[in-house]
Amino acid sequence: MIRSPDNDKLKTIRKLAAKSWRDKLRLFAAEGEDLVEAAWEPEFVLRAGVDVEPELLNAVSSLGSGTRVIGVYEQRWAEPGGELSVWLSGVEDPGNVGTIIRAAHALADGPVVLGPGCADPYSPKAVRASMGSIFARPPARAQLAELPGRRLALSAHAEGTLEEASFEAPLVLCLGAERDGLPTELEAAAVRIPVGGAESLNVAMAASIGLYEAARRMRGHG
Amino acid sequence: MIRSPDNDKLKTIRKLAAKSWRDKLRLFAAEGEDLVEAAWEPEFVLRAGVDVEPELLNAVSSLGSGTRVIGVYEQRWAEPGGELSVWLSGVEDPGNVGTIIRAAHALADGPVVLGPGCADPYSPKAVRASMGSIFARPPARAQLAELPGRRLALSAHAEGTLEEASFEAPLVLCLGAERDGLPTELEAAAVRIPVGGAESLNVAMAASIGLYEAARRMRGHG
Repeated sequence: MIRSPDNDKLKTIRKLAAKSWRDKLRLFAAEGEDLVEAAWEPEFVLRAGVDVEPELLNAVSSLGSGTRVIGVYEQRWAEPGGELSVWLSGVEDPGNVGTIIRAAHALADGPVVLGPGCADPYSPKAVRASMGSIFARPPARAQLAELPGRRLALSAHAEGTLEEASFEAPLVLCLGAERDGLPTELEAAAVRIPVGGAESLNVAMAASIGLYEAARRMRGHG
Repeated sequence: MIRSPDNDKLKTIRKLAAKSWRDKLRLFAAEGEDLVEAAWEPEFVLRAGVDVEPELLNAVSSLGSGTRVIGVYEQRWAEPGGELSVWLSGVEDPGNVGTIIRAAHALADGPVVLGPGCADPYSPKAVRASMGSIFARPPARAQLAELPGRRLALSAHAEGTLEEASFEAPLVLCLGAERDGLPTELEAAAVRIPVGGAESLNVAMAASIGLYEAARRMRGHG
């Protein structure tokens, strides 16, 4: 039973709250039974009251009090590919990145590919928002030019609509940041989700709808 | 210029962080230029450095430091109705409630109707997640039995799929909590979003996809 905050495992978990340490150690932490059950082989797992004093585990938690288990894992990175995948540019909010990883796990066969300016998918908020999907479908990293497959971009400013798009595999659904949008080379491949007036959808909702429509059309409906 | 934390307006904003006070005063607070611009007539607005010392405004903010403006507004509640609207049961996360209000504003003509066990749509997190849509489309409150219109429920356990559903107006799209699901009387009206294996979508993503599909079909596509 760990009874000192100076324990090396606790120190590692504390460090992994910072992206610089996650990058250096190529590790990340996942909290909670659901995530630890969904996970791959851990470096180590600490359970409150079993391996470590509960208050010491709470003190290194990114969720706050009541933490029952924290596991530490190596980061895994996939290669881009699949019949349907997602590419993100400038999606800075880790909750959105994690939510899109969850949506792609449910609706696509390929990974979420992170382009420039995206939040770290192995940050605590992104891992939590993925609800375990990060373990089932690890993310990839690539510049737009490196991606195989046809591109279909979602942009609120495009002329054509999602329904009018063609969905030929392999297809990469491309989404940008809420305010800055997508690289200009994607403009010709962009369609919009039909919405009333000047309203907008957040990037995670737009990704969910785009993936739903692409999956539906690729199954041969509509 | 307000220079004392004992100022009545600052005290009101502090109180409005708590649901009990929001219910009692029938007011709520909205922070940030985007929300204050989207808002209806305020009870009052405080701008940092203009109406109030910046550090005093930060101290009552629910967002933390760097707050430039906070407005206080009366709560408005709509009546259920519209060709397409949403009913929520047991959606406890205020971020999800606000996100669904934003999605319904973009994709439906009716309000989001809050059933039992839902987060307060006028909580700071919900108002922020709505990105101003709460002002354009105030929510409603009703029990399922009080709702006019046909029901279509989304449930991960339903047999039929969303594509097979019929979308006759007026339609209420019904969604439940992630774990507890929907009232049993909605089971006959339930369809699922086709997802791979045992994967799931969060309630805000499911709502976005359901609203997209309903809006598309009601326009006469597919």
